[in-house]
Parts: sequence; structure tokens; C-alpha cells
Amino acid sequence: MANAQTGIGSYLIERLYDEGARHVFGVPGDYILRWYQLLSQSALTQVGATREENAAFAADAYARCRGLGALAVTYGVGALAAVNAVAGAYAESSPVVVISGAPGVNEQRERALLHHRFGPFHLQREIFERITAYSAVLDDPLLAARQIDRALRVAQQASKPVYLELPRDLVDRNIRLLPASNEPEAASDAEALAEAVHETIDLLQSAQSAAVLAGVELHRSRLQDELVRFVERARVPVAATLTGKSVIAERHPAYLGIYEGAMGGEQTRERIESAEVLLLLGVTLNDVDLGVFTARIDARHMIQAVDGEVRIRHHRYANVQLGDFLRALTAALQQSAQAWPASPPVLSASGFPHEGTPMKVARLIGRLNDTLPENMIVVCDTGDCLFAALELRVHPRTGFLASAFYTTMGFAVPAALGAQLGSGKRPLILVGDGAFQMTGMELATIAWKGLNPVVIVFNNAGYSTERYILDGPFNDISPWRFDKLGEVFGPLQGFRVENEVEFDKAWHYALASPDCPVLLDVQLAPDDPSPAMRRLAEHLSRRVQASG
Amino acid sequence: MANAQTGIGSYLIERLYDEGARHVFGVPGDYILRWYQLLSQSALTQVGATREENAAFAADAYARCRGLGALAVTYGVGALAAVNAVAGAYAESSPVVVISGAPGVNEQRERALLHHRFGPFHLQREIFERITAYSAVLDDPLLAARQIDRALRVAQQASKPVYLELPRDLVDRNIRLLPASNEPEAASDAEALAEAVHETIDLLQSAQSAAVLAGVELHRSRLQDELVRFVERARVPVAATLTGKSVIAERHPAYLGIYEGAMGGEQTRERIESAEVLLLLGVTLNDVDLGVFTARIDARHMIQAVDGEVRIRHHRYANVQLGDFLRALTAALQQSAQAWPASPPVLSASGFPHEGTPMKVARLIGRLNDTLPENMIVVCDTGDCLFAALELRVHPRTGFLASAFYTTMGFAVPAALGAQLGSGKRPLILVGDGAFQMTGMELATIAWKGLNPVVIVFNNAGYSTERYILDGPFNDISPWRFDKLGEVFGPLQGFRVENEVEFDKAWHYALASPDCPVLLDVQLAPDDPSPAMRRLAEHLSRRVQASG
Repeated sequence: MANAQTGIGSYLIERLYDEGARHVFGVPGDYILRWYQLLSQSALTQVGATREENAAFAADAYARCRGLGALAVTYGVGALAAVNAVAGAYAESSPVVVISGAPGVNEQRERALLHHRFGPFHLQREIFERITAYSAVLDDPLLAARQIDRALRVAQQASKPVYLELPRDLVDRNIRLLPASNEPEAASDAEALAEAVHETIDLLQSAQSAAVLAGVELHRSRLQDELVRFVERARVPVAATLTGKSVIAERHPAYLGIYEGAMGGEQTRERIESAEVLLLLGVTLNDVDLGVFTARIDARHMIQAVDGEVRIRHHRYANVQLGDFLRALTAALQQSAQAWPASPPVLSASGFPHEGTPMKVARLIGRLNDTLPENMIVVCDTGDCLFAALELRVHPRTGFLASAFYTTMGFAVPAALGAQLGSGKRPLILVGDGAFQMTGMELATIAWKGLNPVVIVFNNAGYSTERYILDGPFNDISPWRFDKLGEVFGPLQGFRVENEVEFDKAWHYALASPDCPVLLDVQLAPDDPSPAMRRLAEHLSRRVQASG
Repeated sequence: MANAQTGIGSYLIERLYDEGARHVFGVPGDYILRWYQLLSQSALTQVGATREENAAFAADAYARCRGLGALAVTYGVGALAAVNAVAGAYAESSPVVVISGAPGVNEQRERALLHHRFGPFHLQREIFERITAYSAVLDDPLLAARQIDRALRVAQQASKPVYLELPRDLVDRNIRLLPASNEPEAASDAEALAEAVHETIDLLQSAQSAAVLAGVELHRSRLQDELVRFVERARVPVAATLTGKSVIAERHPAYLGIYEGAMGGEQTRERIESAEVLLLLGVTLNDVDLGVFTARIDARHMIQAVDGEVRIRHHRYANVQLGDFLRALTAALQQSAQAWPASPPVLSASGFPHEGTPMKVARLIGRLNDTLPENMIVVCDTGDCLFAALELRVHPRTGFLASAFYTTMGFAVPAALGAQLGSGKRPLILVGDGAFQMTGMELATIAWKGLNPVVIVFNNAGYSTERYILDGPFNDISPWRFDKLGEVFGPLQGFRVENEVEFDKAWHYALASPDCPVLLDVQLAPDDPSPAMRRLAEHLSRRVQASG
């Protein structure tokens, strides 16, 4: 328990533990070394990575699985290398606590030119202020405990990254325990809530058809149980957005698949776009989820609950929280006796493996749908594999992690490190060849730590998403034999897969071999995009050309 | 030639070419794709990398070799991934033009939630404002040409990175050519200059001993010829700082080696610290160059010219530019007839290879001193290899590149891509195992492009610099067989080197094999630091402990 003899560094460790973190990701460096030493003597486990950006991707995935993640890096070279991944955590609403060491307060005062410095020392915080929901420099023992408490609260409530900078001469300075400053939680306006619920129920009851579009904020606000209770009570079918994929279990009878405008499956699109009442729960209307604005959803049929308000058609109820709305709605409804409407069919790969048939994206996804074990968590990178994953049906809730809105390439392999430690589940990593070249060598750390993901490399010789937008030599990349990586680090079993028979052999081997990571280097033709990608690329291409 | 029919994107390409750039480094992405297409049709060559940070390291090294480098990336995920490397270019004073694509102005206005977005669109520029000397968004055809001209001028004059953001719907918008806005170059105050030169000459003539400490700003301000003229006229010996290493050719008879306080060689230290007059030319007094503040140089003997002023003992001449000062000083001096004082001995490895002797850091450097070809450029990473390089003597001027002040790990391999394209010389890469794991896979791109560096991996099983400061399990990293990387990509010839005989065999093979990269995975004992590192680590350790 923290007391007035607790140092700032130790207090931070205790509070991270209290809030559920068990691992801290990062790369050591001299400005953070003393805190790493405290960490190694604590109940938290430090998890290294080859690079800070990768450690941040791991912390992001971990945070999504456990509700809180932590990243600890050195000043300058460490923190700045993580900027992209932390911005990604912000864009994707993932509660990562970024802890950056810094030169000591006294050093900063006396010695301007310290290594890792790139300008006045406060610039780093100014950069992180722009990609986090809260930031503080822990340079005052009187305030440090409050700042730490507030950072953790903001991270969890807003589900966003926060930034704490710890000058190295303050790590062992004792905190002062002041009474906590109380901040009321965001609460709904009771009358607005009641009126919004009443109007919603009227609309639902008079409609011939209704559907829910479920967004990622349901996960970030920990409202997945509430969603299930509501849809089971009302018996309304649910599609998810791509960024919200697996916010409801994809094998639930209510599930319609991913809605993504013209990019998504036709039947899902028809069910969402034709619904007389469409409830958008926790959905932010971004270009990815709207299928690059090919979505045809009509505000006159929409009820949107997100960002602390409910919008029904063209009017708004301010100060109505999503969770309160869902709970009140469910409570006000009677159990529907309707049967679930038929779900759209799940993509399957009948007759797989077909002798002599080269691998194709759609067959690969179909085969995964037919054989994916229930207890795996899918971690998906940006590119063709993300679009292909539209047709993938994972099993558990939150069984799919991606950078689906921020779409940073190189997310998946390092994220799998955090996903496995955070969820306890074996990851299935879907990653393109270009994205693997960015960060995939983190598989070395994963193997070294005794973890065991299965990696499927969608190897189509370059940046294929971009080939469909605008091709040129800049979309070519150096060829790698991913299946040979086990020669460099391990344990890792690699397979080169060219056809369906080879795929099944390697995939069965992987499923039967939980002792180490297994990598399938799947050779795909560059002109074999997923249907969603083909449609997206055509749309983006028209936009790029039109910009001339 | 630019005219009113020239698009903003084309004008930028023309101006980069005019100013000497021949290559543009980067990774494509949809917000920059149209500009990449223009690039592929231009006289500039686009050079891909696996990741944006690596592309930025390459652009930094290229800029140091040629006076200007360029990086082109997509918005958000691309630009933010390069933040650390661009901050490094700022800290190390390297003129890199950062070009970031962005959503179109119209898209930004109409569609807030576009992929790769992490907040209001202006945040990215606000972040780059903090790590560049000039930044602009090219969203106004009236101003774009002026902004581009000014960016290039600032990059070259300040030798710092600059930032240009190009919304994709403006790439093909025609520029308006306005009369250029004239900005006077920084000029010296003639009277202050004359007085400073006069006082300096008086001091030099009455002193029994004098020495020059040469800093990196001489290179960044393109004053290396002026330095040589001065020291040859005055016959004063020259030491360089570590960040200024190779600012004068290290085989020049005036050369004393690297001065770095207690970390540097004893004889160099004695010559610098005992000089009656010590001229610091283009030296910034940072912790690395001062040997973590173990330097004992006395202001009463110092003449410092840097940052537009000359400081003699405790008084200052404002508005005296380094170049003007050096030229005036040389002109005012008579040719000295003195012989060069004897140089400190160069570390050598006599009797190498000694049968059965495991590799040691000092012997490795000695062997390189004895055998390094004249036409190689050394690109050195951060860590033990950087400290070891204190005793290395390279041949050509600017024959040594490192991130010696910002000390970002993972600089060397990607920087070698830029260094070879920028200098035309074959790189020798010195890199630790930890740093290689961060970015070393860029060697795949290097091999694929037909370049041929020799890579020496100082493989001592972890973050050894940090082990000497504060050790713990966090300094361990996963073991890699670097010598097997040729199984994954190529062409690449790898050798595992455990002893001196194996080193010489591999090193001779490398020198005789210019057709592809050659990698020597040199096994070193974790308790075999360079002498400089041992001293540094001891100092840092005392500081970390004292902070408790």
C-alpha cells in the first residue's frame, strides 16, 4: 500500500497493478533504467521488444484485451519512436499509459545539451499532448500521486492513451499523499434519457424491420454485455463495423456480418440499408466503416448513440450516455418472441484442399472459417488481409484486433505479443508481406518468450492495396523467404505454401503444434485481391484520379 | 523550368533536383501516391525502405553526404513513424526535406473521419513544427512556390530538417510564380570580426601551445576546406569531437584523434586540456562530446566560434560567423614554418590474426585501422560500437557517419542506404546486436538495390552499454543468427566470427567481394566493452545511483 514513504516510481507501479496491468512493454534506455530496475523487483513483468514502436503496438493490443496497457521508454529516441503507435492507440481508442523517462530535473536545469535531446526538453510533452488524452510531467512530489491517479482514470474512462514523463532524479522521491480530487463521472440527463428511450421504443415497435450497427466504442466503453442483452431481448439482428469487428461474437445468431457500404457483403448491406429503424450503437462514422463513403444509410431511419448523446433522425438528446441508454432501453422492452432472422451465409471453402489449386484469398478465408479453433484470437494487419477479414468469422468476443481505422501497417505481429499476454489466447496473425517487413521481426521476441502464434503471411509481392489505387515501381518491395526465418531466430517452424494441399498440411501442423510459433508464407498472385479490396481500390483510384 | 503551368508537386520535384537531390526516400501510401507517380516520371529516383523511420535515417545520411536529402511519406501512419528519425536529423543538424502527403483540402473540410487520422488534421504539422526548422502546408497555389523555396533555403542554411505537407488535391494545382522574397544571408559585423581576429592572433602568437577542437558544425556549414587551410597555415594540431568525427581527414598530419574528456585517449586529452590556447570551432558543448562532462577544458584558455558568435575567454563578439572568422583568421596569419607535432599513435592490432584468440573489441578496431580501405565510408550505430569507434581512424573527410549526439539506436543500417547512394562509397556498417534488431532488416532493401555494404555486428548478447549502467533481465534480447540472414533475403553473404582467424578470413572475403553485402556476425563477450564505454558507463552509473 502506498504511504508517504512510497517513491513516485513505486507508486506508479502499484497503481498500474491495482488497475489490472500485469505487464509493461518497452525498451530500456538510461533515462528510464532506474524505473526498469524497480519494475524488475515488482509484481509487474517487463516485456522487451526490438523497438519502441513495436512495444507500443503490443501495449495497445494488451490494453484492448485487459482494459489497460503500459509502455515504458527512454526520453527522445525511445518516446519519439513510439509516436505513430501511440497516435494509433488514440485513433483506435486504446487505453495505453505511456511512461517516458527523462533527464533529471537538475540535469535539465544545469546541462542543456544532453544526449537524446532534440530541442527544449518540454517539446516531447508538447508532442504527446497532441496524441494522448492527458499528459503530465511528474516533477513535483506534491502533485505526482494525483497526476498518476488522474492519468489512469482518464485512460480508462476515455479509453485513450495518456502520457507521464518521469525525470530520472524523481523516481525515488517520496510522494505526498493528498486527498484525491473527486471528479464526477459523466452522467446522463435523466429526463433526456427517458424521452430518448421512449421515442426509440415507439419507433422500434412501429417498424417492420430493425437492425443494429455495432461499433467499436461498445468495446471501449465495456458495454458488450449490455449490447447482447439488448439484442436478445429485442431480437434485432446486428452487423458490426470493420473497426468494431468482434464487438459481438461473430457466431451469435443475431450476427449479420460486417457492414461496410459497397465493400461489405451484399446481404449484410441490404439488411442494414433497408432497415426501417437502424440503431447505430458506439459507431463513429469514418471512411473505413462507411466503405470509403459508399454507405447508403439514411439519417431519417437512424438512431445513433455515441459520444455522450443520442441522435434520432435529425434531433439530438444531449447528455445521454451510451451505457445508460442501452440499459434503459433493454429494461423498457419486453422479451420478443420472434425467431432470429436467417443470417447471411458464412464464406466457406468446400472441397478444400483441392489438389493442384493455387492459393486464393477467398478460399483461404473460407478455409479459416471452416476450421478456425474457438480459442484463438485473430490479430490482423493493414492491407489486403484486413479487407479479406471482412468475410472471416472469429469465435470469441473481442476475438479480432486490428488497426482498422488508423490503418497503420506493421501492427499485427507486435500486437500479437500483447494480445497473447493480455488474453491468454493463442493468436492467429494475418499479415501482408509489406507489413511484415516493417515490424514482423518482433516474432523473434515472441518465440523467445515461449509464445506460440500462428502467422499467415499474405505474400503477394508488394503493396498490393496501393497497386489497385495507383501502381508504379514504388509498390515493389524486396522479396523475403519468410518461411526461412527460423534459420535466424526461434523456435519457429516455417512453411512455404503455394497451393491448397500445402496450406492444409501446414495449417494442420500449426494447430497440432502449440509449442512454438508457426509461420505460413502463403504465395498469392498480385492480381488476387479480396472482393472488398477490389471495390475499395476502385473507389480510391477514382478519387486519386479525380484530384488531378 | 518552372512556369505558371507547373503543378505544385512538379515544382517541388524540380526544386529538389536544382538543389542537388537525386534520390527521394520513403514508403508509399495513398495520400502521397499521386506525388510518387510524378516522382517516378521525373529525374529523381524514389528509393523505398521497409519502414518510414528507416527511410528517414537514409535521407539523413544522404543529406550529410550531399547537402540535401528528401523523405516522402503518407499522412499519419507514415509521417508519425518518422518522428524519431526527423528529430534525430534536427539534433544532428542534417538538412532533410520531409514531404508528407495529406488528405485533400476538400476532403479535410467535408469528411472529418478519414483513415490515418489521429485528431484534427493540423496536429501533424504542429508536431513537426517542433522537430524542424521550417514547416508549411502547401494548400495555397499562390504561396506554394515561395514556401517550397523558403523550405529548401532554410534546410540548407540552417542545416536542419524542414517539413512540407502536400494535400493530395493540390499536387496538380498550378503554382503562381511571384517574385521571390529576398532574405539577406546572415552576415558578420565587420568591426567585431576584425577585433576578434586580432585578439585571436595575439593570443596564438604569444602562446607556447595551441590546439583546435573541431566540431560537427564545420561540416554542416560546409567549412571543412577552411578548417584545413587554417590549420595548415597555423600548423596547429586538431582533435575532433565524437559528433564531429571525420570533419577533418583522420589521417591528416595535424590530427590528434577524438577528444572526449576522460572517455577519449589519454594523449589526445592531455594535448587538448593543456593547450594554452584552445580554439573550439563549430563545437556545441553537449554531454557526449564532453565525455559525460568529464572534460576539463578551461574557459580562460578558450576561443569558441559557433552559433554566429566568437567567445574569447569570458567576453563575446556577437554577429561573427564561423566561416568569416576562419577565413579572416587564415588570411591574417603568416605561413608557419613549424613541423607538425607528433600525433598520438593509432590503435593497431599487431600479430593479427592470432591463432585461437577470441575476438575482442580493441583488437577488432585495431585490425580495421590496419586494413580499412581508403574508399570506404563508415556508418556507425549507437552503443558500444560508437564508443569503440573513438579509436578508429577512417580515411576520407566525412568518412564517418553516426547519430553521435542524439544517439538513436538503429541508425546505421538504414543510414548506409542513404550514405552509399549519396557518397558513391562502399559503406562499412558498425552495429550492435540490439541496434540491428531494431532496423537492420533494411539490409534486404540494400541488397535488393544492388548495393554492397560490409556489416560488422558487434554481437554481445544484449544492450551492453546499459549493462554497465544498471543491469537486469531487461537488457537481454532474443538471440539471432545474423549470419543466416542470407537465407531470408539477398544477395547477402554472412559469416559467424568467433576468433581472429575467422575474422580475417571473412573480412578479406568482404573486401574482395564487391558484388553484394557481406555481414560479419562477430561474437564478443558481454564483459568486453571498449575502454571509452567502460569509463562512460562508470560515470553514468554513478549518476543513476546518485539520483536516488
